[in-house]
Amino acid sequence: MNVLKQIDSNFDELIKELQILIQQPSVSAKNEGIEECAKLVEKILKKTGLKTEILRLKKGVAPIVYAEIKSKKNPKKTLMFYNHYDVQPAEPFELWEFPPFSGTKKGNKIFGRGSADDKGELITRIKAVDAWLKTTGDVPCNIKFLIEGEEETGSAHIEQYLKKYQKKFSCDGVIWEFGYVDAKNRPIVGLGMKGLLFVELSVQESIRDAHSSLAVLIKNPAWRLIEVIHSLRDTNGKILIKDWYKDVQPLSKNDLNLIKNEPFEIDSFKKEFGINSFVGNKKGIDVKKALVADPTCNIAGFYSGYTGEGAKTVLPSKALVKIDFRLVPKMDPKKQIMRLKSHLKRNGFSDVKVKVFHGEAAARTNSSHPFVSDVKDAAQQVFGKYVLNVSNAGTGPMFPFVHILKAPCISVGSTYMFSRIHSPNEFARVDLLRKTTKTIALVIENFSKS
Amino acid sequence: MNVLKQIDSNFDELIKELQILIQQPSVSAKNEGIEECAKLVEKILKKTGLKTEILRLKKGVAPIVYAEIKSKKNPKKTLMFYNHYDVQPAEPFELWEFPPFSGTKKGNKIFGRGSADDKGELITRIKAVDAWLKTTGDVPCNIKFLIEGEEETGSAHIEQYLKKYQKKFSCDGVIWEFGYVDAKNRPIVGLGMKGLLFVELSVQESIRDAHSSLAVLIKNPAWRLIEVIHSLRDTNGKILIKDWYKDVQPLSKNDLNLIKNEPFEIDSFKKEFGINSFVGNKKGIDVKKALVADPTCNIAGFYSGYTGEGAKTVLPSKALVKIDFRLVPKMDPKKQIMRLKSHLKRNGFSDVKVKVFHGEAAARTNSSHPFVSDVKDAAQQVFGKYVLNVSNAGTGPMFPFVHILKAPCISVGSTYMFSRIHSPNEFARVDLLRKTTKTIALVIENFSKS
Repeated sequence: MNVLKQIDSNFDELIKELQILIQQPSVSAKNEGIEECAKLVEKILKKTGLKTEILRLKKGVAPIVYAEIKSKKNPKKTLMFYNHYDVQPAEPFELWEFPPFSGTKKGNKIFGRGSADDKGELITRIKAVDAWLKTTGDVPCNIKFLIEGEEETGSAHIEQYLKKYQKKFSCDGVIWEFGYVDAKNRPIVGLGMKGLLFVELSVQESIRDAHSSLAVLIKNPAWRLIEVIHSLRDTNGKILIKDWYKDVQPLSKNDLNLIKNEPFEIDSFKKEFGINSFVGNKKGIDVKKALVADPTCNIAGFYSGYTGEGAKTVLPSKALVKIDFRLVPKMDPKKQIMRLKSHLKRNGFSDVKVKVFHGEAAARTNSSHPFVSDVKDAAQQVFGKYVLNVSNAGTGPMFPFVHILKAPCISVGSTYMFSRIHSPNEFARVDLLRKTTKTIALVIENFSKS
Repeated sequence: MNVLKQIDSNFDELIKELQILIQQPSVSAKNEGIEECAKLVEKILKKTGLKTEILRLKKGVAPIVYAEIKSKKNPKKTLMFYNHYDVQPAEPFELWEFPPFSGTKKGNKIFGRGSADDKGELITRIKAVDAWLKTTGDVPCNIKFLIEGEEETGSAHIEQYLKKYQKKFSCDGVIWEFGYVDAKNRPIVGLGMKGLLFVELSVQESIRDAHSSLAVLIKNPAWRLIEVIHSLRDTNGKILIKDWYKDVQPLSKNDLNLIKNEPFEIDSFKKEFGINSFVGNKKGIDVKKALVADPTCNIAGFYSGYTGEGAKTVLPSKALVKIDFRLVPKMDPKKQIMRLKSHLKRNGFSDVKVKVFHGEAAARTNSSHPFVSDVKDAAQQVFGKYVLNVSNAGTGPMFPFVHILKAPCISVGSTYMFSRIHSPNEFARVDLLRKTTKTIALVIENFSKS
């Protein structure tokens, strides 16, 4: 097939452009390189032959890079690619084998922050469209790109963007920004995502740091915060906040069957992370159920006092903890925040300051939608196999896409599941970038016909 | 009296030399500027007219700056000044009004890391000796300076130095490196110090950071460490480690009487730190007793995961806490470490790594020693008042001085008790530097005659 051959023959350019994308830092948490990266992405899309636009909401909000191209032969159906050009912070820098913004290629891997999440995925979508244009001078259906710059800080404004540009964004299906490939090289076709509530709790006990000899008198905010955190969760991972699980629905029989059929390589997973057992000593089916359907309370960061080398006898004045709660369908982030705040109040922790970074509801796409077959078939054709996943363990703003655009959302992509995304030495696998670009090209074709 | 007039007329030079000392960073926790500062201190002492030496133990150990001068008229009695040229780390830098190593003078204050602790105290001792030499061409008794470079990391090698150079260091009394002045401008004549055990506890749950969506499976070391820390202390400050208080002696009636007579301005103390109540809701005499005689368990630092701006959904692989325990007389640091380790083992925390930074026993000097009167009288003459303190709440290596040199140790000095030592915006009060230099000059004279 010409389009697949075109992807092979043009593959060096894909790698080169991915490296250029990695070399432009775009850390949304620090507002580092965001505008520059948006312009770079727009340039690549324009060069590919799409009509581009930088969309804005208001000052201080990262812009969306939007691009579209109409199909000459089939202008009635529209496929959207949702991706993001921002990346996670690269810290701790000292643990990177290569500089995090170098895009170094070594063997079958390209290293760098964003190599997999999400610049690697983005380039597969762009090059799939590029291959159709180069081989046929047309695209099989209308194509839209919605590439945001705040995904890694929780897509705080995607809902507003979707509402403001609802007409521009209208489409019949969305290919999601990520897609995992498991330890046995099976692409995972994903139909859902968990929600997320990211909060920062902080305590201040005095107006300045003191010499630690005064700890006989002055209260230590780290001690206070430890009391607070200790009240949130038991050692098996169960969240102790009143009514936290109240709205959670049990898994349907259908869901449970799909989960049972999902493969999960417990041993390679444990080996990759160097662990012997799981939270709550989960085993068998419970491991897979947890990934799809368990809410969590995770300490993403804790900081107080002196954390440098050696000893410092200080009594800190402040302490803070960053916590992310994963949510499952029917858990409303706003309600969950109120439950957290009530918990603090009820337990006498009214002095704790709560800062909500963002809340996002979970979403799932119906497995019987024809779009699901378009993607499954493409993956089967290129990879020879695939896995169908009820819900990813992670979070993305799928809820507003499903509810505002009324479009089914499916994830499929090139990210090897041990690609160390969000960690030092994140990498993309070259073989998977190639296969995913081909898969996306076929998804476009299947979708245009279904 | 000529020597006091000399101190006044030469006072500008004292300020200038203190600023030069502050401008030389000497952070022992980071091994920053240590050798340079030792040389600078030696230069100042040599210029003053003392015979100097840089003493060394072994590579990697900060040198001691030693200086001495024999009295022509009274060579039988020797007073030693124990000080340190190293300082605490200056972090967090952004909270300093002036750069921490600038030595900026503003009104009655000189700002900078080490301005009070301990470069300010050191300069008062040097200038007191200098005044005697300039006015009489002699010193009233033999003078020795022992100035170490590891005090802020716990004086890990002072005992070895004292043993190695026991003869060189022989003396009849030691003026300690610090000395506080309370809110009512009363100098505190201090007779003792608490001990200290500084440890770092760390936990690793997996070999790399992970995306926080995996928190359903991978254990979080911050959660683990919170369980550990939570087991160490109750909310009133009581340490829950078995037998922690076993060797502690009750305060004697004599001690209790001295403590009762010690003033402590609860309201100005609370105001300075912006607090409403104390740990364990202590009141009245219990507040003063705690400063003299309560062991503590203080969280000096806690670190895990992402602690920068904004949100990062990470599951950290490691977490660490730095804890300092203050000890009182009869508590043997080695025994207390074993008790801590047994506690961890008994509670199932065998996976916790314990790193001991140092342990130091508490020490007290007998209040009936004639040296005490020498210091009290000098303080009374210059300040018109003084306070006698059974034991400081802080820690210094007084135990090896008292037990190896067999010399009484007394603290008296220029550090206003709200000088923010170990914190941002540490300062020395110019008026107190002057008064303390005069007090030290009189201590030398009283001591030579007693």
